This record gives sequence, C-alpha cells and structure tokens, in this order.
Amino acid sequence: MKQLDVSKLDFKKLGGLIPAIAQNAETGEVLTLAFMDEPALRKTIETGYMNYYSRTRKKLWKKGEESGNVQKALEVYPDCDSDTLLFMVEQAHDIACHDGTRNCFRTDRFSLERLFQIIKERRDNPKKLSLSYTSKLLKDKTLMREKIMEEAGEVVKASVKEGMERIIYEAGDLLYHLLVLLAGEGIELREVIEELARRRK
Amino acid sequence: MKQLDVSKLDFKKLGGLIPAIAQNAETGEVLTLAFMDEPALRKTIETGYMNYYSRTRKKLWKKGEESGNVQKALEVYPDCDSDTLLFMVEQAHDIACHDGTRNCFRTDRFSLERLFQIIKERRDNPKKLSLSYTSKLLKDKTLMREKIMEEAGEVVKASVKEGMERIIYEAGDLLYHLLVLLAGEGIELREVIEELARRRK
Repeated sequence: MKQLDVSKLDFKKLGGLIPAIAQNAETGEVLTLAFMDEPALRKTIETGYMNYYSRTRKKLWKKGEESGNVQKALEVYPDCDSDTLLFMVEQAHDIACHDGTRNCFRTDRFSLERLFQIIKERRDNPKKLSLSYTSKLLKDKTLMREKIMEEAGEVVKASVKEGMERIIYEAGDLLYHLLVLLAGEGIELREVIEELARRRK
Repeated sequence: MKQLDVSKLDFKKLGGLIPAIAQNAETGEVLTLAFMDEPALRKTIETGYMNYYSRTRKKLWKKGEESGNVQKALEVYPDCDSDTLLFMVEQAHDIACHDGTRNCFRTDRFSLERLFQIIKERRDNPKKLSLSYTSKLLKDKTLMREKIMEEAGEVVKASVKEGMERIIYEAGDLLYHLLVLLAGEGIELREVIEELARRRK
C-alpha cells in the first residue's frame, strides 16, 4: 500500500472520523462507504485489511470478520484537503454488502472487467460450465484464434456496408472473443490496459 | 435521474448531512466526496446539477459555480442503510478538483474508457493532431479496417508462437484500433459494452 502520512489527515472535521470509500480495484465499482477513526486506519495499514469504526456500535470492526467477505486494501488515496480516503480493494467473494450483494449501492454497471471476471470464473471452475460456449472456447485454442479472425472480419464487413447497429454487435463479439483468448492464455485484462497506459506516457 | 425517495434517507447520523460520492459515469473514476444537507439534495434533484453543503462556509453551493467545472447528475444510488449517496455524473472539462486536477484523489487509473475519451477528443478537435497517428487513422476508414485485420492476425500469431508478452502487446494494438474504428464510426464504447451486458441477461 502506498505510503500514507496519517498525521496529515484531518480527523477533526467529523469529530474523529474520516469517510473511507472502498472501490473494487479490478472493476472500478464503488463498493462501500464507511468511517475510520485513527486506530481503525492504523489497523488497516498494519494488517492490509479494511477496518472501520462503527458509529452505531461505537467500536472498531474488521470488515468481513464474521462473513468472511473481507476487503484487502491495495492502495489508498487521501483527497485534496485530506479529509476523505479512497481505497482500492480486492473484495473477497465479490460480496461487499451485509445484504449479500456485490456492493452497498446496488449498482449493476457492466464493464469489460466484469465480463472478464466471469470468463475467468468459467476458466477456473470448469465443472459448472461444461455446456457453455465460453467453456468450449477455453478448451480449444485453435477455435479461439479462428474466432478472433472471423470476428475481426465481421467488424470490418459491418463497417463497410452494414451500419452502426451491426458494428456495435460485431465489435461486442470481437471484444468477447479477445477476452476469452486472454483468459485462455493466462493473461489479465489489466496487463493489456497497462500496456496501453505505457504508450500514453 | 432515477427516482429517489428523499424522505427515506438518514440525515440524522451526521447531524443533517449525508456524504455524496460523485463517480464519473463514463470512466468509473471516483471524482469527489462532499456533503449534502436536504436542501442541497433537493436542489441537485431539481436542477440536475450537483449541489453540496459546505461545512466550512456553512452554506449551500453549486459545484463548479465559479470555475464552470459543474457536475451533471445522471443517476443516484442510496446505499443499503440509506445514509450515503453515490452519484453517477458527467464532469464538465474533466476537472473535478478545485486544484485543477481530474479528481480530488489524484488517482490516475488508465482504462479503455479513458483511452476512448482521448481518441474522441482527437476526432472532435482535429487541429491539435494533424501529425498524430490516431488522427491519420480517423481520416482513413480503409486504413482503419485494414489495421483491424492486421492486428487480429498479430494477436493470433503471438498466441500460436510468440508468448505472453507479445500477446499483451498485440492485444493492446487490436483494442486501440478497434476503439479508433468505433470513434470513427460515431459509436460510443459504452454502446458496445451495453450490447455485451444484454447478452449476459
């Protein structure tokens, strides 16, 4: 976790507390907002897992202590006036809310990262999915590669003469098959995005 | 904006205030955390622009009123215990912080959505970029399409015999050229992701 100077944070504005946002580091989804007092923050830094201060129970608690849905703290960013913290976390079991949902805000924003997570689950738990198309592709690298070429051709064909709706459809196909190939090769989508980030610099 | 039942929100826990997170609807970037009292929230709902309550100046303020860096509120999500709000916003000028930075947390997370924004800027402000490769591609649909096929071929070749590093590199190329084609065709990346989301249901 990035070095954080705790002494520079402003705990006074909220009577000893600081709001801490937890964001899923892979998908960018905002998971939870809870409060930390200084001991909870220090415990978070020491242990690498999110600890908060409960305003109702008036005590420190480790997120997921009972449910197992812990949040591993990967990075922390204080805001411009040092009175809010943004944490990038890895959420155990993809369940952040005590209600059993993925996040406390019930957002359901789809992203390539989420699709990639689903494809990786199918790769890593092949039992569930013996009948799925994704599973079939993951077992057959030749097919995976053929599909990349085929879908690239469909995108181009759509662009030449089939119009926007068709391009959207075929671009979706190409993206999906590219994600399957990455998962099949043991590559993280983030590695490809970081490659693109390097080129921007 | 999604209907929000203001009467169900819990303003009591923080003495009349509720924390409001603003997240960039396109990129998923967390931009700001500020507080709303009930009048600020009602003003936000009425006007469609983010209004907050300033704890230091003790008054309502419209975000960006002086700088022009307003936040258009697109969607709002209360959390599980109705004491926090998450807003999806469109950030004017891509500057959310009073310090002139993109967000108050100084995060610099790269994403395909950010790359796509950059490509669209080049498309929409061609002056700046007469010499850029992106600009050259955007002017030449035949070249755009040829590159899709060429890069798809490179991904496959890398997968057959060149190893992971090369696949990462070539997948980056393919993604970049696909984004350029979408921008060139006037298609939003989000439209393609929504197409993929529909298939999951």
